[in-house]
Amino acid sequence: MSDSRHAHAADRRSGGSLVNTLHLRRLGIDTYQEMVVYMRSDCHICKSEGFEAQSRVEVRRGDKHIIATLNVVHHTMIALHEVGMSEAAWRALGGADGDEVQVTHPMPNQSFSFVRAKIYGRPMSADGIGAVVRDIAAGRYSDIEMSALISSCSGSRLDVAETVALTQAMVEVGQRLQWHANPVVDKHCVGGLPGNRTTLLVVPIVAACGATIPKTSSRAITSPAGTADTMETLAPVALTIDQMRRVVEQENGCIAWGGAVSLSPADDLLIRVERPLGLDSDGLMVASVLSKKIAAGSTHVVIDIPVGRTAKVRSAEAATLLCARLMAVGEALGIAVKTIVTDGTQPIGRGVGPALEAHDVLAVLQNEAAAPDDLRQRALLLAGSVLELSGKAQPGAGLALARQVLESGAAWHKFQAICEAQGGMRIPPTAAYTHVVTALHRGRVVAVDNRRLASVAKLAGAPKAAAAGLVFHTPIGSLIEVGQPCLTIHAESPGELAYARAFAEETENLISIQEA
Amino acid sequence: MSDSRHAHAADRRSGGSLVNTLHLRRLGIDTYQEMVVYMRSDCHICKSEGFEAQSRVEVRRGDKHIIATLNVVHHTMIALHEVGMSEAAWRALGGADGDEVQVTHPMPNQSFSFVRAKIYGRPMSADGIGAVVRDIAAGRYSDIEMSALISSCSGSRLDVAETVALTQAMVEVGQRLQWHANPVVDKHCVGGLPGNRTTLLVVPIVAACGATIPKTSSRAITSPAGTADTMETLAPVALTIDQMRRVVEQENGCIAWGGAVSLSPADDLLIRVERPLGLDSDGLMVASVLSKKIAAGSTHVVIDIPVGRTAKVRSAEAATLLCARLMAVGEALGIAVKTIVTDGTQPIGRGVGPALEAHDVLAVLQNEAAAPDDLRQRALLLAGSVLELSGKAQPGAGLALARQVLESGAAWHKFQAICEAQGGMRIPPTAAYTHVVTALHRGRVVAVDNRRLASVAKLAGAPKAAAAGLVFHTPIGSLIEVGQPCLTIHAESPGELAYARAFAEETENLISIQEA
Repeated sequence: MSDSRHAHAADRRSGGSLVNTLHLRRLGIDTYQEMVVYMRSDCHICKSEGFEAQSRVEVRRGDKHIIATLNVVHHTMIALHEVGMSEAAWRALGGADGDEVQVTHPMPNQSFSFVRAKIYGRPMSADGIGAVVRDIAAGRYSDIEMSALISSCSGSRLDVAETVALTQAMVEVGQRLQWHANPVVDKHCVGGLPGNRTTLLVVPIVAACGATIPKTSSRAITSPAGTADTMETLAPVALTIDQMRRVVEQENGCIAWGGAVSLSPADDLLIRVERPLGLDSDGLMVASVLSKKIAAGSTHVVIDIPVGRTAKVRSAEAATLLCARLMAVGEALGIAVKTIVTDGTQPIGRGVGPALEAHDVLAVLQNEAAAPDDLRQRALLLAGSVLELSGKAQPGAGLALARQVLESGAAWHKFQAICEAQGGMRIPPTAAYTHVVTALHRGRVVAVDNRRLASVAKLAGAPKAAAAGLVFHTPIGSLIEVGQPCLTIHAESPGELAYARAFAEETENLISIQEA
Repeated sequence: MSDSRHAHAADRRSGGSLVNTLHLRRLGIDTYQEMVVYMRSDCHICKSEGFEAQSRVEVRRGDKHIIATLNVVHHTMIALHEVGMSEAAWRALGGADGDEVQVTHPMPNQSFSFVRAKIYGRPMSADGIGAVVRDIAAGRYSDIEMSALISSCSGSRLDVAETVALTQAMVEVGQRLQWHANPVVDKHCVGGLPGNRTTLLVVPIVAACGATIPKTSSRAITSPAGTADTMETLAPVALTIDQMRRVVEQENGCIAWGGAVSLSPADDLLIRVERPLGLDSDGLMVASVLSKKIAAGSTHVVIDIPVGRTAKVRSAEAATLLCARLMAVGEALGIAVKTIVTDGTQPIGRGVGPALEAHDVLAVLQNEAAAPDDLRQRALLLAGSVLELSGKAQPGAGLALARQVLESGAAWHKFQAICEAQGGMRIPPTAAYTHVVTALHRGRVVAVDNRRLASVAKLAGAPKAAAAGLVFHTPIGSLIEVGQPCLTIHAESPGELAYARAFAEETENLISIQEA
């Protein structure tokens, strides 16, 4: 106790070493990006601080600290003097098993008052949005707080000014790349379709025409392959910023893994909560896309908006509103945006899995007659648009230029050069084990369960086993006979092949066939 | 695969035993009411189903099933063929270590579409609200989904019709008590103050006047004592419904632990997410309070609304709106509601901790001169109001009747009879160890940190150690000298006393003293 002359209103935590010290212990529990710590219910800190399961706690090691969610452990998992760490908490705090840490109540999350005001119906100021985004990036927001924020921004609840402020704030809390060239072009797809590897075609076409396109892509999170996974079967992708710069200076373009570069960390944290809620928010989607493009140093970006019942954007009206918002925010923040609404009802290409998708890309680049035409056409459309936006083609002439660069072999040549510059071109691996799943009925393919198809590919080992996945032989509309191959499963081990095969054969309506 | 004639659109989960079976393992991790399961990242089901950390999964054991959040475990915590269970998941699913279970994607949470519509600004129908509440009670809502619902209902976003529907739906998913008497009266306090044990005084006063008051109370969740914890130092409280009924038939009232009776389970789940968000919602608060009262079979209820900076209701205006909504919804659902706005700026009584609070109650019941007058006055006010509402006193005559019943010893007699009927009156325990914390400065007490005061009581062992806690000697406004006792810590072990003492002495502004 002290008298009020000694009050420190800004720091009311008790820092006493007797009552707040525990020792670190890594538990190897993956809670994804949510930081969780584990303490014994009979631990003196739980009692004194009133901590219970799901309390938010601050763990401090020297001058580093994290704010985490508490799980209380009854049994013998950890000792009384220990605090167990989830993987995300362990990574964020650093340190070693046994290190001394202090566990206390966190300072109140002050910026959440701006979210409350928004929930009650008042607009958010740019300052308020900035404070919220900084606290999110610093890990001060719990999942339920982020969910409340997302709800309050859903539908059309964010106006243009709020969306501009949110985009700007997201850029400011992350790393930002800078390029000597101008324009710096980019492409982005809102809501990925399986097999939709247009990036590996757009980049060499555009780079071959002399435009600068330093592309960063993601690895798979829930899908059988991300663009970075597919590219990695063809060349190294884990480039440092300096390596990216050298590749781009030499070849105009690169296809690198964006994971090493933290371009919009607050957005990464929000997306994890946003995805399972399935809430549409033009404001959040626009801020997410444009913050990453601005942070990547792009000046001109073409955005592919697939529209379909199972795509992220479900109707033409929704696409129109989204396009308008993208253009308005882009204009406010000095990035030229062009949107293209495309068909999002079917997968693109035939392969699903890193190497199998790479084979589709190579077939298109090498102008093989059997190359998947849907992938080729989609890539040409986007590349043509990027060329027009960047000034490398006159309006209306981009598609023809893109086609010419692809058909002449210039794009294939450029792709090989980019791969060499990134560390050397590779031949995508081939799976040792395959199994052909055949039709049990005669008829016409009327529907494909894309989610289940992805599950087959993942069960076969994709994306970790790069050669694993499947080749899909019978797109919607195909007429098939009994015994005709529908898909070929590729795996690197007999066990994975067996699991994928059993799963494919047990799953109803993986491919729906209607009697013709 | 099958053709579309065999489609089962309503059940797309693959139920194959090869790919979806694991074995139960209890891990002893308390995630409070959130159900969490733990699976190995290299588990075949994680791969085939695309499960990742934080995925929602369905675990089925025979005809029982739960929906839980997945944490992925890398290390040696569980075997490849096992699924680890948090305590909440373990309790809900039942079974034994080693039992076979199937783990699959859960059916989509259909009713969340009503929440999305509400978020987008459309009102919820009674049918929609009913579906949402049933799914919440069935454990189908994740924390972030509940957070989105709460945000969409915050401020004044729920209208009277929605609040009525929500209250009704919450009643319908829980157990409902029925009594032969009419009226059945009740009292409730919105947002507890430390030491505010008026229930133990209101019940005997009202019951002594012949009104029926079958009170159920809660145990402490985050506080050093709940009403049920305090009552338990005086008599058994874990009564079955039949036991409650016998006590009430004999004595008109009881003070039982409500935990055995699941009166509004959906509300219990929502409150856990609502509390840390700190969002005000008249609609949710009204539904929470009235659903429990209606489920408990009450026909007339007096609601105490303490208003204060650190109370749940912070302003007179907010209290006025809340009162109006309580009355309107009560009227629609056939329960008579009377609200009383009281002072919520200070704790009530002197003891903090089960037995110490019981001593305050006994002092008031026995008309001791030194009994805490704030507790006595608050209880008389509420009891008088209940008596008027129930028709046992004329309007304006309730307070005088309550005072007469207390001062005559009738209330004390009735309290003893209720304790005997509940299984026998007990003498509250006394702590073996005490320590007096004295003032370091001379002056006037200007503020008390109630949260920290509660922490001292909890560190001393409350509520588990029933005799533990503290007695607070110097309410706001007291003039104190150096060395004068400010509070006395009570503990059942020397170790707990030492922790509580160290904490009290290290904490700044536990009691703020201004030089007089």
